[in-house]
Amino acid sequence: MTAEAGQVYIEDLGRHAGATVTVKGWLMNRRSSGKLHFLQVRDGTGVVQAVCFKGNLDAETFRRLDLLPLESSLEVTGLCKAEPRASGGFELDASGVRIHQEAEPYPIGKKEHGTGFLMEHRHLWLRSSRQHAVLRVRARVIKAIRDFLDERGFVCMDSPIFTPSACEGTTTLFPVDYFGETAYLTQSGQLYAEASAMAFGKVYCFGPTFRAEKSKTRRHLTEFWMVEPEVAFLEMDGLLDLIEEFIAYVVAQVLKDRRAELEVLERDISRLERVVRPFPRISYDQAVALLHEKGQAFAWGGDFGAPDETLISEHFDRPVLVHRYPAQVKAFYMKRDPADDRLALCVDVLAPEGYGEIVGGSERASDLAFLLEQIKAHQLPEETFRWYLDLRRYGSVPHAGFGLGVERTTAWICGVPHLRECIPYPRMLEKITP
Amino acid sequence: MTAEAGQVYIEDLGRHAGATVTVKGWLMNRRSSGKLHFLQVRDGTGVVQAVCFKGNLDAETFRRLDLLPLESSLEVTGLCKAEPRASGGFELDASGVRIHQEAEPYPIGKKEHGTGFLMEHRHLWLRSSRQHAVLRVRARVIKAIRDFLDERGFVCMDSPIFTPSACEGTTTLFPVDYFGETAYLTQSGQLYAEASAMAFGKVYCFGPTFRAEKSKTRRHLTEFWMVEPEVAFLEMDGLLDLIEEFIAYVVAQVLKDRRAELEVLERDISRLERVVRPFPRISYDQAVALLHEKGQAFAWGGDFGAPDETLISEHFDRPVLVHRYPAQVKAFYMKRDPADDRLALCVDVLAPEGYGEIVGGSERASDLAFLLEQIKAHQLPEETFRWYLDLRRYGSVPHAGFGLGVERTTAWICGVPHLRECIPYPRMLEKITP
Repeated sequence: MTAEAGQVYIEDLGRHAGATVTVKGWLMNRRSSGKLHFLQVRDGTGVVQAVCFKGNLDAETFRRLDLLPLESSLEVTGLCKAEPRASGGFELDASGVRIHQEAEPYPIGKKEHGTGFLMEHRHLWLRSSRQHAVLRVRARVIKAIRDFLDERGFVCMDSPIFTPSACEGTTTLFPVDYFGETAYLTQSGQLYAEASAMAFGKVYCFGPTFRAEKSKTRRHLTEFWMVEPEVAFLEMDGLLDLIEEFIAYVVAQVLKDRRAELEVLERDISRLERVVRPFPRISYDQAVALLHEKGQAFAWGGDFGAPDETLISEHFDRPVLVHRYPAQVKAFYMKRDPADDRLALCVDVLAPEGYGEIVGGSERASDLAFLLEQIKAHQLPEETFRWYLDLRRYGSVPHAGFGLGVERTTAWICGVPHLRECIPYPRMLEKITP
Repeated sequence: MTAEAGQVYIEDLGRHAGATVTVKGWLMNRRSSGKLHFLQVRDGTGVVQAVCFKGNLDAETFRRLDLLPLESSLEVTGLCKAEPRASGGFELDASGVRIHQEAEPYPIGKKEHGTGFLMEHRHLWLRSSRQHAVLRVRARVIKAIRDFLDERGFVCMDSPIFTPSACEGTTTLFPVDYFGETAYLTQSGQLYAEASAMAFGKVYCFGPTFRAEKSKTRRHLTEFWMVEPEVAFLEMDGLLDLIEEFIAYVVAQVLKDRRAELEVLERDISRLERVVRPFPRISYDQAVALLHEKGQAFAWGGDFGAPDETLISEHFDRPVLVHRYPAQVKAFYMKRDPADDRLALCVDVLAPEGYGEIVGGSERASDLAFLLEQIKAHQLPEETFRWYLDLRRYGSVPHAGFGLGVERTTAWICGVPHLRECIPYPRMLEKITP
């Protein structure tokens, strides 16, 4: 898009060196010294310093700038000059300033604010450089996800949000009154993605998913985004390769295009640069042995808790693929390991540095009789899954897929401990505003 | 992704002419004549004919193929030969066939089925060539939308699904029990996108939106996808340019990459080729005059109904931008026309051929006092909009944005009259399965 008449975005100033341009944005900071104002102006694409000499502006404007509250909106017209000491490499020698709106005293200052206060002001907190950096990384993660899949011929097939059934149990579902019937908000688009894969071969769904979890930990959101690729004729080994290639690609894209943001976040970039293939792959059994080596009490057969995941992931310098968990802790639709019927052909990917599970995937059971047994054993309503079972009646094939959580992945890449900073408007227990 | 050992996708056969390859898919159709089976095999990326000579296959397999039900899953290994009469330009001279699963008798046949029956079997109906074509167009529309915005520096900022407030009235909201409080499923991410634009300059949100409308028309879904770009410092004229450029780009991308699908749908492609800039732009007043010319009774001041929209759009060979509606029929947040205070600075885009509104947009009111008045006049709860009003307290700027519905756009581009075919798993009044 062409910017409005004469507007130049700060990230594009490099193409306008020596020209007089107009930047439109907000006052982020100011230093003044008698005959000079140094205005830090942000426009969403970057920050530039505007140098305002008293002699170059009309007296009234110069006076107003002295007291102008932070986050006031303004336009600065000036000569774009290379300035090696400036963060973007350029500054403006202002010849005119137009103040759009003089802000009321801005509630977010330089002093430390409590998280509750910042969350109440999320709509303004987004303007802070740290939040801005995290969410620009998140947007790049989303683009990398879609590019990877689109370039490889995956068809975007959105699974529905309103569902009549639960994918993995019903305790954490949000029910909705759907014209007198009860519907649930989706926890996972996978079952539908399986149906889509039988029609399109390679597909993905990518949308918000919902968990009515009463946990208040830093790892939980009630609403988060998840991408779920699903591939007909893909089996366990191919699945592990696909996941590895996918994660390595996403990290590489962020490193290529969002390095400045990672620097704002003081991220140890060398740790991300190590995220190249091959990733370590260990079986559940090996993971349990590793926990025991590290002195952690853990009984074979259970699922890993957050402390277990942290201990396992700390042992590696890149994401680790943990495969073949006991079937009893996993969902009903997973295929069993032909080499050991107690195990599911599944994989969890644990991010380094204690960021926990970012991917869960599996080869899916393709045998109708086995699935019927599992639905009974898990006490799920068979009628609800009738359509899903049809996929095994009409041309069943081996297939596999996985889900990757966008906010957990963003948290890990950014080195931000709390998921609430990794989505624009977080939703949590007791938190639904703004 | 590398396909599993030896698998070649049908869309890639052109790169394997003269080689022996394996295609994995489903039996879509069959003709037999004694010593020959002609199998039409689909794999989600295309359809290929496999020619099976009795002498080239083992006797048992050849016999089973004679009776193999449609949609059975199978792998065909054979020589990839150029065949000008074949739809993709190639066919397979089969040297081996492996049957994965013999399907139960397939419920969807060549005879006409009622819509109710097809909707009940949506998970299978997706495999039909027409549905397959529509949804591949939809996926390309989605990619075009994101590419257009990403390439122009828009930051993807997802608006929340759970909201405490309604953007435009409360009668069509789905309420959710949110841990004892009432939340609503979003109808539009716009108000949040405005907050995001004040932090990032140019943004878009793109996700599912919900309308609890009791209408059972072909133009209504309860769950549909909408993209909503929002730009700080963008004003009315720039908004109209942006919308035009955006729609023209999306149509051009589909024409470039999905022509085969449009041909399956027997779409009149010449009509889409006319969708280039400039688009006609008419004011609401001119639209009303046009209706009167056509003999339609319509009183100035009301909103257009579907028949009015059809009459207006039929007058033009490409999408028409209708701007400056009476403020009384539009939402509270729109800026008034400085030239006529009764009008809002808004625009609806009507697709050609009676497909109705695909875009609604406006310049937003930036003045706090005016917005407060409007919130009172619309009897909306001021407290709920406190955070939204903050955007006018802390650096208010001119800004504008619009929303485009993915399924309506897909319906128009495909020439498909009913929205239910333009989303993988449609949700409507009385329809929530599969």
